[in-house]
Amino acid sequence: MAQARTRPIRSPTNSLLKVYRRALAKGTTREGWLAVEGPFLVEEALGAAPAVRTHSVLMAESGWVKFARLLERLPAEAEAVQVPDCLFEQVAQTQNPQGIAALVELPPHSLDTVLRGQNLLLLVACGLQDPGNLGTLMRSSAAFGASAVCTLSETVSPFNPKAVRSSAGAVFHIPILADLAANHLLDRLRVTQVRLVATDRHSTSPLYEADLRGSLAILVGREASGLPPEITREASLRLSIPIRPGMDSINAATAGSVFLYEAARQRGFKY
Amino acid sequence: MAQARTRPIRSPTNSLLKVYRRALAKGTTREGWLAVEGPFLVEEALGAAPAVRTHSVLMAESGWVKFARLLERLPAEAEAVQVPDCLFEQVAQTQNPQGIAALVELPPHSLDTVLRGQNLLLLVACGLQDPGNLGTLMRSSAAFGASAVCTLSETVSPFNPKAVRSSAGAVFHIPILADLAANHLLDRLRVTQVRLVATDRHSTSPLYEADLRGSLAILVGREASGLPPEITREASLRLSIPIRPGMDSINAATAGSVFLYEAARQRGFKY
Repeated sequence: MAQARTRPIRSPTNSLLKVYRRALAKGTTREGWLAVEGPFLVEEALGAAPAVRTHSVLMAESGWVKFARLLERLPAEAEAVQVPDCLFEQVAQTQNPQGIAALVELPPHSLDTVLRGQNLLLLVACGLQDPGNLGTLMRSSAAFGASAVCTLSETVSPFNPKAVRSSAGAVFHIPILADLAANHLLDRLRVTQVRLVATDRHSTSPLYEADLRGSLAILVGREASGLPPEITREASLRLSIPIRPGMDSINAATAGSVFLYEAARQRGFKY
Repeated sequence: MAQARTRPIRSPTNSLLKVYRRALAKGTTREGWLAVEGPFLVEEALGAAPAVRTHSVLMAESGWVKFARLLERLPAEAEAVQVPDCLFEQVAQTQNPQGIAALVELPPHSLDTVLRGQNLLLLVACGLQDPGNLGTLMRSSAAFGASAVCTLSETVSPFNPKAVRSSAGAVFHIPILADLAANHLLDRLRVTQVRLVATDRHSTSPLYEADLRGSLAILVGREASGLPPEITREASLRLSIPIRPGMDSINAATAGSVFLYEAARQRGFKY
């Protein structure tokens, strides 16, 4: 691959640096590009090319040698921007900046395209608030062969920097459909004959006694309160993970992941 | 229950406040008592009496009415200490202090006592670094009916405040044996005929094809690197959770929880 263009920036008021600073704090730029920090996520993004397009990489001067191999994999149209370490640290949002960040564009995914698939396994986050939990669920969804992750409005953004970090790169490997209206999504799923499975700790039907093969959507609710009743009502199955009497619940991301595991196990883990 | 003694403290240099400040930051006092913050954990601790002894409760003045019910449940020998809100905030370690904290003593647990049980299910954390992951595993262990959680040295402390918060009170409901020497623990488990199950992402034996009934210990390794080879070598079973090709792994707490779920499922979730 051709060596990417390299540009040094030394001014803290440079407009690209402002874009990076804002996007690394917020997760995305105004255009919807994702900002990622650290060599692991930059490498995952480059590894997901050409579906994922890397627009630019921002690098601290001291990282120039350390990250030379990553730079070699940068597509020709991408820009490599080098800044003094002190400037990188001003832009970075992690506690221990590792000297590399990137702006990348995820492929456009639509519900229509996702719903054209067969034997769908969807994870629908309905109100989760903790970005770490959502990121963990994105990671489990990709690992267990889910078709997509959907988030309803009033759910933390899947592009929140902490969610992206917790996803450990899964954000690049599975379609993410964010901020959907509950009514619209549930209607579409019903029409496409995707069964709605509510994860409901008050249910007395254990998930492993249900048939979790065929197209289905696993609905995961908010950390403390679970699914809103108006969503649980729409589900064709309400299932729980049996836990020891006296224990209230397990972590929301763990619960969603156990449902994904159980569905994948029943499907024979075929992708 | 008799009303607990109440004592107002107004001096920031008061020695009990210093004990609280240090313990809430570190997790435990010099005596090994656990410091917990927030109404949820204080309530869980009180609910686990008499096994868990509450020595004192520290409360911000503005919480006096709000937490009156909690105070009523305080055992007679415990002390209720009231401080001005500004002092509580200096002592608290959470971002949004909720005005209540407690010093509690966990029951003494020993490996000997735990190993006297039948049909053991142990979770052994071998090098986990993230307190949130360890806390989540403690929560899953209690929920899936595990007999105890053991942590080897070089593992984050289960009494780290973030681990305790992530455990969501499970720390009060399951024996926690911390900071064990690997050799000692593995020898004891072998002698007691507890099978060692390594969670090993490089194994090609899926966990659901193994028989996970009978006494066993699930060994969970470090987040990035997994189990050290010298521990994997000792295991009688090396099992993995099948994941989609191209995906590297799932979250360590999720993986451990899926093993616990699968073991509980095979055991028929009987406790």
